[in-house]
Amino acid sequence: MYDQRVFNFSAGPANLPESVLNKIQEQMLNYNGAGMSVMEMSHRSSYFMEIMEKTEAQLRELLSISDDYAVLFLQGGASLQFSMAAQNLAVPGKAAQLVNTGSWTQKAIKEIKRHSELNVIASSEDKNFSYIPKVTANDFDDRASFAYIASNNTIFGTQWESFPSLSIPLVADMSSDILCRPLPINDFGLIFAGAQKNLGPAGVTLVIVRRDLLNRSSSELPTMLNYSVHADKGSMYNTPPTFSIYVVGLVLEWLMQMGGLERMESLNREKANLLYTAIDESEFFYTPTEDHSRSIMNVVFRITGDREDLEAEFVKSAKEAGMDGLKGHRSVGGLRASIYNAHPRKGVERLVDFMRVFEKEHKTALAHSN
Amino acid sequence: MYDQRVFNFSAGPANLPESVLNKIQEQMLNYNGAGMSVMEMSHRSSYFMEIMEKTEAQLRELLSISDDYAVLFLQGGASLQFSMAAQNLAVPGKAAQLVNTGSWTQKAIKEIKRHSELNVIASSEDKNFSYIPKVTANDFDDRASFAYIASNNTIFGTQWESFPSLSIPLVADMSSDILCRPLPINDFGLIFAGAQKNLGPAGVTLVIVRRDLLNRSSSELPTMLNYSVHADKGSMYNTPPTFSIYVVGLVLEWLMQMGGLERMESLNREKANLLYTAIDESEFFYTPTEDHSRSIMNVVFRITGDREDLEAEFVKSAKEAGMDGLKGHRSVGGLRASIYNAHPRKGVERLVDFMRVFEKEHKTALAHSN
Repeated sequence: MYDQRVFNFSAGPANLPESVLNKIQEQMLNYNGAGMSVMEMSHRSSYFMEIMEKTEAQLRELLSISDDYAVLFLQGGASLQFSMAAQNLAVPGKAAQLVNTGSWTQKAIKEIKRHSELNVIASSEDKNFSYIPKVTANDFDDRASFAYIASNNTIFGTQWESFPSLSIPLVADMSSDILCRPLPINDFGLIFAGAQKNLGPAGVTLVIVRRDLLNRSSSELPTMLNYSVHADKGSMYNTPPTFSIYVVGLVLEWLMQMGGLERMESLNREKANLLYTAIDESEFFYTPTEDHSRSIMNVVFRITGDREDLEAEFVKSAKEAGMDGLKGHRSVGGLRASIYNAHPRKGVERLVDFMRVFEKEHKTALAHSN
Repeated sequence: MYDQRVFNFSAGPANLPESVLNKIQEQMLNYNGAGMSVMEMSHRSSYFMEIMEKTEAQLRELLSISDDYAVLFLQGGASLQFSMAAQNLAVPGKAAQLVNTGSWTQKAIKEIKRHSELNVIASSEDKNFSYIPKVTANDFDDRASFAYIASNNTIFGTQWESFPSLSIPLVADMSSDILCRPLPINDFGLIFAGAQKNLGPAGVTLVIVRRDLLNRSSSELPTMLNYSVHADKGSMYNTPPTFSIYVVGLVLEWLMQMGGLERMESLNREKANLLYTAIDESEFFYTPTEDHSRSIMNVVFRITGDREDLEAEFVKSAKEAGMDGLKGHRSVGGLRASIYNAHPRKGVERLVDFMRVFEKEHKTALAHSN
């Protein structure tokens, strides 16, 4: 039980800016004089239409998205996009291509294969997904229907440094790092992201799709799975997740007040460097992630010797000290600090201090066991 | 611009109990000592798991749902369920059957037909969907894969009084009247409902499915569209819409405090009767909806002569008087008062008073035009 807010290192759903929560709280019973909560509003009311338009406009400004792209607010998370991307972009007789960087691309492989032939052209499975394979445009086949990647991998703590510029549509699952840095939007055919890490609450999924690709969506698809319909209807084919979109809008507003994505990238790099430096300088902690693949969103680390007992104690003591969510994903164990856009630098500083103290207190235990 | 809350007659998203909004507001920055908002919590945290379990338990209690049924919290609204119901319940070589009661079943027809043969066995299209066709169990074919209905029709203001007890699974879209009255759950194979009318905010979809039907879900379906997977994973195959589920839980808690569904039905009937009586007694207003099909959730009415000019003025003046959302659906015009569970009786009384005054002021205009 905390009477104050904790530092939340959860991999998602995750931190929201406190100013955003304050705004939601303030507007809860009466949004801007509408006499009702955003949750209670018709999605076709002028109040909500304005929220929707403003949210899209802010996103376009932050990411420099041209009108060649449609911006959609859908439901079902990235997991539904694994299917939708393939169902909408597959081309009969052509294979898709994918770079396998861990659990999330593995799940995507399973879904894409239901609808399309698929070739995995590179993988980091040989070293437990501890790096992003080095690929260039030459590694992709110009005749493929699309290329698929996950830009950041929450479980293994890896992130693409830069992206290949391809002649075929590049599809990227950016659920865990969208808006953490500026993006060369025009290098992508389709970007999607569940909101619950860097955008807002779980329950809304951002889709950015190049308009010329909408021709690929067959009218035989279930309507709710058809990008082209959602684009035509401005994400209003049915009732969109209105409140979640409103919160995304507030987060985007906050990002603009913070100075935009170049500024966010530099803040994010500073936070990540604090942590990676502390890990690199320590003989107690280490990161399995290779140098040029280190994520600035999810810092994965372990205690030397993969001491699960000490890691469990670390998580427990950190929690008592007001730092929550530091346990690694259940599939890999270890420790993980997720430090998305809204995670304050102060939280990272506190964690680094805590790591130093914990190391000092437990180094002897480690020495004894070695 | 209102400095107070208005009476909200919107068809959905719609009213939430003010006590629920107050609770959300109070818990916004720190939920029960978690040190964070529900929006920021890992869906696998003990705090959220408890919310999820409690929400399901409350729903089971309110609707007397036995363990023969799985309760799921999904995304995509009823519109995605049109497809999912068919994709999961269709049986090769068998047709489905449907009673057509307006726009929502028409949309369902379009989606079901992508995956199954479908026969419309009754329809009220002959009288512009102003009634629910009288059907009994004998009207359905025992060899059909499933039967499909919409229990309440927001656009035409009709509602099923009771349901046939069938040997084949009965599928019901209950988006607009779930929890407005007790239900004979065991007469249904599948019930689904978008939350945004009687359950909570847009962005979460309730699915109640008889467990034996889960055998019909093919492993070839996209994982996110497979009821069986969602049932196995307790709606946690991927990140569920956590905050929306939390609000649904608060609404269910409120329903229990109100005295449960028998009590709600009697309150809802009282509210609806107030309105229908005012309409029936007036020579100025009329409802196109037939007697035994009148919805207690959406009261559809018009001004005699279908005077669109006066109807527009009614909507405008009502809004100025603190009553919002009274415009009929754009596809049918006219007026509509949606009075879901959370709509206070006081709002209906205010509307009835307003109607009387409006009638008195405009009767002359009507007489002149006739």
